[in-house]
Amino acid sequence: MSVVLGIDFGGTKIALATATESGRILRRTRLETRARDGAPTVVRRAVAAAHDLVAETGAGPLSAVGVSTFGVVRGERVVLAPNVPGWEELPLRGLLRSGLGVQVHLDNDVNAATAAEVRWGRLSGVDTGLYVNVGTGLGAGIVAGGSVLSGANGAAGEIGYVLTSPGQPAYAAGHAPLEEYVSGSGLARRGSDLIGRDVAAHELFEMRDDPEVAELLEEALDRLGMAVANLAIALDPERVVLGGGMAAETSVLPRLQALLKSAVPFPPRLEQARFAGDASLVGAIALALDARDAQDALDALDALNESQEATQEAPGA
Amino acid sequence: MSVVLGIDFGGTKIALATATESGRILRRTRLETRARDGAPTVVRRAVAAAHDLVAETGAGPLSAVGVSTFGVVRGERVVLAPNVPGWEELPLRGLLRSGLGVQVHLDNDVNAATAAEVRWGRLSGVDTGLYVNVGTGLGAGIVAGGSVLSGANGAAGEIGYVLTSPGQPAYAAGHAPLEEYVSGSGLARRGSDLIGRDVAAHELFEMRDDPEVAELLEEALDRLGMAVANLAIALDPERVVLGGGMAAETSVLPRLQALLKSAVPFPPRLEQARFAGDASLVGAIALALDARDAQDALDALDALNESQEATQEAPGA
Repeated sequence: MSVVLGIDFGGTKIALATATESGRILRRTRLETRARDGAPTVVRRAVAAAHDLVAETGAGPLSAVGVSTFGVVRGERVVLAPNVPGWEELPLRGLLRSGLGVQVHLDNDVNAATAAEVRWGRLSGVDTGLYVNVGTGLGAGIVAGGSVLSGANGAAGEIGYVLTSPGQPAYAAGHAPLEEYVSGSGLARRGSDLIGRDVAAHELFEMRDDPEVAELLEEALDRLGMAVANLAIALDPERVVLGGGMAAETSVLPRLQALLKSAVPFPPRLEQARFAGDASLVGAIALALDARDAQDALDALDALNESQEATQEAPGA
Repeated sequence: MSVVLGIDFGGTKIALATATESGRILRRTRLETRARDGAPTVVRRAVAAAHDLVAETGAGPLSAVGVSTFGVVRGERVVLAPNVPGWEELPLRGLLRSGLGVQVHLDNDVNAATAAEVRWGRLSGVDTGLYVNVGTGLGAGIVAGGSVLSGANGAAGEIGYVLTSPGQPAYAAGHAPLEEYVSGSGLARRGSDLIGRDVAAHELFEMRDDPEVAELLEEALDRLGMAVANLAIALDPERVVLGGGMAAETSVLPRLQALLKSAVPFPPRLEQARFAGDASLVGAIALALDARDAQDALDALDALNESQEATQEAPGA
């Protein structure tokens, strides 16, 4: 028997879990990220915790590792990741591979959560699908041909940068226009400015009897709805899945579904994600299993080709 | 030797061409659509013209047929196709298959043009790409994993329905919000309203010294730019290709490229499409060849599997 490992790097916590080859979680742990210690230390601590966890699981050697991280995974490195100093300079994939002794499949946290929904959740069996995560940040995972789309630079789905009106200050000017309206951090900042004290996004949903708060939330949902509808128009997904903290607010789903119905020629069904708080950790396990399956498929194809060559070379064939 | 055939159904013209199996066009013809004759007559005429063209080409039997059409191809039928009365009721694929005696690969005109750019043009070798066509209408083709994305209902890329501001009258209210601003027909309608006489879109580009005309064009380009930038943010394409009449207006490409640079974290290169006036006819030929290649790949896999089974069943294996 062997186990697979998932590691989820977050801005404040690192979560790890071992799982069976069918994805059942065996054991999990978490540690503080302590970003100010710098990226190399953060990675070393995660590798040590991974070794401990695999040993404690006691279910055999590690066969595959999946890793989800904040930022955008571009080849060996993670970019657009200001949370942890030095994260962008680190050859993360290589460091983890040499630290853990097996291949590492690495993707950003939202793509990982999307992979979990494809493997076990609301996007299972879906050829074209869309996962939208409204948590502290805002991001999406695009499913095409049953797989999560990476894009040319690993940046597919980074919809926090989407414009909601022409001429808006945009990425090159240091902005993430849609995320500034619609995300835990964006809502908190705008809500705190409005009210004059620090409020979290979920508190704003509790304060919606206040007309100014209601207006702020409606503006955010209108812009999110427009962006999701526009993506659904462009992709024609079979299903759209909403994850992250905002998916749990009861008013959000019906409102977005109504918008999809009014704007999209073939309105997709909108559903709440199966995985919530640990979506990107479960996603990291899905990434590990995706990598293992891809390797198995390649091995099978190699075996087929070899047997084909053997047949062709056989005397009399 | 055998030939492939492409048929492009347009609202006013039907274009047909035969080509070699490597895509070199051998012979072409075109006929009036005469939409008011109704869909069955239009299809019968096209089938007759196809038989004539293949006979005149005299290069062997038909091995594959690709067909591009206005509207959205959904299974056997074409929907969202008001141009030709009865088009939506017609089982187009089946009628053409029985009329022509071979399998027919059918897609909408913009997806077909995208397939041509993937096979021979500016999206060749591109894994994630985007083709945007601003002609009489507005549409896009999305390339993911090197293939044109269909979506769940064949409606991927129908960006004419994209919203450019929250709360805008949308698809369900009979609108195509972005197309009404940015397309040959949309610009002509808005320009004619502004000027008080009928003008075509290309005339407006010649009249841009008039500040009101300039403003109308800038508003259209700003909205198109926002939509294309937002799609590029979401898809992270390696390249974006602009086709259709507007791609030839010299001011358009630099302006859109600047917008992509300001809004997209990894700005893709923007290029003018290789194919212009006959893009969807060349695309129909690309569809035919794509279908043939897919069939060849399936045949090869079957052969591999059979030889594998033969090996496994062989005595002593």
